Amino acid sequence: MTNHLRHGFLLGVSFGLLLSTAACSSPKQEAGAAEENAVREADIQWSKTAGTRDLEATISYYADDATVLPPNAPVATGKQAIRAVWAPMLAPDSSISWEVTKVEVARSGELAYVLGTYQLASKTEPDKGKLLEVWKKQADGKWKVVADIFNSDLPLPGPPAKTK
Amino acid sequence: MTNHLRHGFLLGVSFGLLLSTAACSSPKQEAGAAEENAVREADIQWSKTAGTRDLEATISYYADDATVLPPNAPVATGKQAIRAVWAPMLAPDSSISWEVTKVEVARSGELAYVLGTYQLASKTEPDKGKLLEVWKKQADGKWKVVADIFNSDLPLPGPPAKTK
Repeated sequence: MTNHLRHGFLLGVSFGLLLSTAACSSPKQEAGAAEENAVREADIQWSKTAGTRDLEATISYYADDATVLPPNAPVATGKQAIRAVWAPMLAPDSSISWEVTKVEVARSGELAYVLGTYQLASKTEPDKGKLLEVWKKQADGKWKVVADIFNSDLPLPGPPAKTK
Repeated sequence: MTNHLRHGFLLGVSFGLLLSTAACSSPKQEAGAAEENAVREADIQWSKTAGTRDLEATISYYADDATVLPPNAPVATGKQAIRAVWAPMLAPDSSISWEVTKVEVARSGELAYVLGTYQLASKTEPDKGKLLEVWKKQADGKWKVVADIFNSDLPLPGPPAKTK
């Protein structure tokens, strides 16, 4: 190797590493806040969609292989089973909505979880509770829900407490 | 720039990019399976620990700012509130255990979710259900639970169904 060749080579290695450092870290860190907003916005839109009682539009927020874990019922995996879980929650006599309380996105920007609270207005079975959703960015760049679970804040219905 | 210098520079850029590609992607992909195993193993150990009814050891699997969302009760955030949720589940007359059904780790290797099923053996209130946990790798490299929610598969207790 001539001196010039060696000099050029080392300069090139530095430049190459510099290039890749830029490509490898900063965009991901910047992506953090943008992805967090994207998931939060998607969740807000999802609650609004459920408010319109449009079952198919509500179900469209799930990935094809998503899992829903409804209280007092078995696990529902896939769109068909998930549709059956959602249908009664979108009945004309009830109204469901929820709010995000926390969003955290993985540094890699493709996996996130959401904590939130929900309200179910209903004459027969009003309810309020909490939820945990896992969102995953799909191949087309859209965020979809891959796992969704919720439960009530209200005490279990049962016989009135005995007083001795 | 002489020809030699230019030649060396381009060679160096290629080498630098090659180096960084190796540093930037492959270890992360290899880390995927390793981290998935780490989370799965931690969860298996956690269930065994709960089986010993050691409250403090069980609670030690949570991050300090973790959130537990127990059914039919309000959200519990932080160790103090989480301790109160766990105490009755580790009572001498009951025995809780759970199994992982799915683990998925973010590409960045610091955030993961676990789907699973649980059984609560108890003379007074036997139960079985499902769970969703979010784990996060802490600054010291240990995986801890940051969010934990579960609910029962069993139908709600209530008045027997009316037959017309």
